[in-house]
Amino acid sequence: MKAVLFQGEKVTVVEKPLPPAGRDEALIRTAMAGICSTDRELLAGYHDFAGIPGHEFVGTVVRAPARPELVGRRVIADINCGCGICTWCLAGDPRHCPERTTLGIRGRDGAFAEYLSMPLRNLHLTDESLATEEAVFAEPLAAALEVGQQVHLKSRDRVVVLGDGTLGILIALSLRLACPRLLLCGRYPEKLRVAEAQGVETRLLEPGGAPADICRELGYFGAVVEATGQADGLALAIELARPEGTVVVKTTSHEPSAISVARIVVKELTIIGSRCGDPELALSFLKNRWIDVKPLIEAIYPFAHFDEAWHHAGRRGTLKVLVSFE
Amino acid sequence: MKAVLFQGEKVTVVEKPLPPAGRDEALIRTAMAGICSTDRELLAGYHDFAGIPGHEFVGTVVRAPARPELVGRRVIADINCGCGICTWCLAGDPRHCPERTTLGIRGRDGAFAEYLSMPLRNLHLTDESLATEEAVFAEPLAAALEVGQQVHLKSRDRVVVLGDGTLGILIALSLRLACPRLLLCGRYPEKLRVAEAQGVETRLLEPGGAPADICRELGYFGAVVEATGQADGLALAIELARPEGTVVVKTTSHEPSAISVARIVVKELTIIGSRCGDPELALSFLKNRWIDVKPLIEAIYPFAHFDEAWHHAGRRGTLKVLVSFE
Repeated sequence: MKAVLFQGEKVTVVEKPLPPAGRDEALIRTAMAGICSTDRELLAGYHDFAGIPGHEFVGTVVRAPARPELVGRRVIADINCGCGICTWCLAGDPRHCPERTTLGIRGRDGAFAEYLSMPLRNLHLTDESLATEEAVFAEPLAAALEVGQQVHLKSRDRVVVLGDGTLGILIALSLRLACPRLLLCGRYPEKLRVAEAQGVETRLLEPGGAPADICRELGYFGAVVEATGQADGLALAIELARPEGTVVVKTTSHEPSAISVARIVVKELTIIGSRCGDPELALSFLKNRWIDVKPLIEAIYPFAHFDEAWHHAGRRGTLKVLVSFE
Repeated sequence: MKAVLFQGEKVTVVEKPLPPAGRDEALIRTAMAGICSTDRELLAGYHDFAGIPGHEFVGTVVRAPARPELVGRRVIADINCGCGICTWCLAGDPRHCPERTTLGIRGRDGAFAEYLSMPLRNLHLTDESLATEEAVFAEPLAAALEVGQQVHLKSRDRVVVLGDGTLGILIALSLRLACPRLLLCGRYPEKLRVAEAQGVETRLLEPGGAPADICRELGYFGAVVEATGQADGLALAIELARPEGTVVVKTTSHEPSAISVARIVVKELTIIGSRCGDPELALSFLKNRWIDVKPLIEAIYPFAHFDEAWHHAGRRGTLKVLVSFE
């Protein structure tokens, strides 16, 4: 099969054997994959990842010895594959299993390839009403919805989401159901308009604005979600949080963030890291059309042109770039 | 104007003067009102209410001296009218103001009349895309959404809603966005089908089933919402809750409920009473079509036939009966 490999700083497409698929796994033919900023960080050295990247996908099961009825079905997956026997796994949440592999991120070849393999228990069937380019958003949408799993947001809370990348917009669209008065702040008018079109209030922040000035303009918030993807996003988030407020951190920048711990102490803030979410919840949102993800698609490239897709996804201000294998 | 009055056990339509509307109030011409089981309990003596009942409405502002721009606009209202100066009111939540009046329930004439008056600060404009018979659901939908304001439900939680009346179905439809695996239990197949059509899993409970048998069949739940409208609903809810689980109580039956306090202690349950909610959140759900309330409408009667509407609403197994003034 054809697959993407990171070699040093270079992204190349090579010929590889089909991935191994054990008895409790399925071999899946990739239909579509999404490029995520985490993929860029892997290339920059995050997680010391070597192998095939790609963790946002939708595909069709082609082999599943233990569950042959799955063959031919369209699936997405929970990307965290646990050992199945540790306390985390037995409690139903393999995301923190110390032995876990993670599709295209940690110890498991990913979805920028014509085929991939996943444990059967990680698979979720997608509703037939969902287009391929909608179902491929299940993984990032689940990550967005995870914020509401961690923090009990109430409709009257003042909530701000910082960052108008794909993840920031998905978070704003997700949390808006609980918090209709939510505010999304970003740097790109055309990206903010994507959220506005689905009812989100937005504010353009000029680059280099002083946090104190931004607080004077916007006021303070009970919950701040930091999804800028920038190392300096956390400092602004901490300033915007009201005393006893909560800051949810989504950015996984591998650069160090310079923050004042004293500000966290004096304001008695709660800082919460947030990662992957529940794919079943994301599929429910997609199937029921509570969020429309299609306007977040910047471009769809055929896999044969992966190189162009990769470069397009790397441009500043780009929303979701997808790669089609069909 | 014509208005409904409760006289002993009798419901009559009488001629009354227009309600007084002070400088900070609006006079509203009623467009549509909903009949709620609380109205029946008022007639049975709950709250010692005397006056015009009706607290679910949508109407058009006809006079608002302090905000003349509201004249001609379609509105719904937060039904709790606070004093504006106590600690509850100053904290933005007049629902617990000790001096409050409540439309058609406590110290304030209600919406089963051609006109009503409300404080300006209680009014919410309805989106033009909403039909009158949708906007009239803002009050009961806000009460349904209040459950999610009180309890932090997560997508993997096992949640059951008991009761397939209008409120139970609205709660199931509301919470399903957070908990796609939620279960609604009721007594009427045709009412359960209304929820099923919007993706809710349901279960028919035969009348008189022993709680222990029902638990054996359904298992235990992290959160149980009791919306049966029956005095004995709470006992089943307590059995269905898992140890350390939460029971949210919506039923306002004025009959006493026989429950075992020891069961609450031994299982270390949290029991939470739940009343009115945030109308702005309900309007957001209606405007964005996250819930379709129209299938909950059983019948719409002209106000001239209020007596028939009242009797229809009183039949067992009836969903929402609306009264139109237009």
